[in-house]
Amino acid sequence: MKPRVDYTLYLCTDRDLMTTDSIEEAVELAIKGGATVVQLREKDCSGREFLEIAHSVKEVTDAYEIPLIINDRIDIALAVDADGVHLGQKDIPAVTARELLGQDKIIGVSAYNAELALQAQKDGADYIGVGDVFGTSTKADTHHVSIEELTKIRNAVKIPMVAIGGVNHGNVEKLQGTGVDGVAVISAVIGAKDITAAAEQMADKLEGIKR
Amino acid sequence: MKPRVDYTLYLCTDRDLMTTDSIEEAVELAIKGGATVVQLREKDCSGREFLEIAHSVKEVTDAYEIPLIINDRIDIALAVDADGVHLGQKDIPAVTARELLGQDKIIGVSAYNAELALQAQKDGADYIGVGDVFGTSTKADTHHVSIEELTKIRNAVKIPMVAIGGVNHGNVEKLQGTGVDGVAVISAVIGAKDITAAAEQMADKLEGIKR
Repeated sequence: MKPRVDYTLYLCTDRDLMTTDSIEEAVELAIKGGATVVQLREKDCSGREFLEIAHSVKEVTDAYEIPLIINDRIDIALAVDADGVHLGQKDIPAVTARELLGQDKIIGVSAYNAELALQAQKDGADYIGVGDVFGTSTKADTHHVSIEELTKIRNAVKIPMVAIGGVNHGNVEKLQGTGVDGVAVISAVIGAKDITAAAEQMADKLEGIKR
Repeated sequence: MKPRVDYTLYLCTDRDLMTTDSIEEAVELAIKGGATVVQLREKDCSGREFLEIAHSVKEVTDAYEIPLIINDRIDIALAVDADGVHLGQKDIPAVTARELLGQDKIIGVSAYNAELALQAQKDGADYIGVGDVFGTSTKADTHHVSIEELTKIRNAVKIPMVAIGGVNHGNVEKLQGTGVDGVAVISAVIGAKDITAAAEQMADKLEGIKR
């Protein structure tokens, strides 16, 4: 059965930004602080390395019963029996992903306008990741999404929506009233000296923001 | 059922080297000249683009009843129902690939010494790609494999073996007596002005070389 996902504090990994030696450690510390879902996003590594990391991280997420989402590589998600995949607009389309993954897996799709969000919903996506909301340094080739556009997208679709892109403790409150189901964080959490504390503080702020 | 593959003239694609406008056209011309199996190898493109190219190329290979092998991305192979995958030493391991693909698909593994070749055979690979035999400009991070080592690998394993790496019309005869089941060609065929003629000439030479 498809897991119910709490998207409130959606942690994305990035080895280049984390303050720990291992991804497993960063993920565990973030979960202890309140991360509710984890996306493994490793762009610059081989398939074999990605698979090995996915196996190790899944041991952590399983231990805490936190869903694990794999970025882009459906084959890696299948190989480690992850809870789902997250797909960008240049990745394999959601419809094809659904055929490969079946009905019990989570499929997330990146969308930066209402049209793409509606298409994702139509294609069977379980949630959308919307951004770049605050400007991010972790991805090239991003589209800025204003708070106004974010609200418009929220009103256009029924599936859960996660805001992504440069979200940190200083700007997260700007999302108040947009109806987001959660925020995706990278450097604001895994780039912090105290990852658990950073996650806790972000989770606290999100309690007040979510509708 | 797993297709029987004739590995004699194993065509690898590379958009940067081909003389045609489209990969589909290059593949069709090479098949007309005698290519017996096609591997789609596109490293610098998105998952979505790779999927689209794979769909288009499969229409061509299906029309000529030539097996289509996908490099690295098992999810793409599954999505287009390709005949198999080719895996490098840094890709998802063959054992995992077999779990995802089942018994009816071809799995090829790159090996540059007898130990890796034996491991690939043990892991259920259907064939091995051995090289770099003559020095290639199309891949970084390659290992040179001498004719002596190639013969040693041939004697170590039972599964079919394809020599790869800089094979062209001028050097292919050096493979005489090594017991290779075929050669993988890229630029020597798809980089030729007349792709069909280049494939024909290579196929002719290979007739004399194969044991």
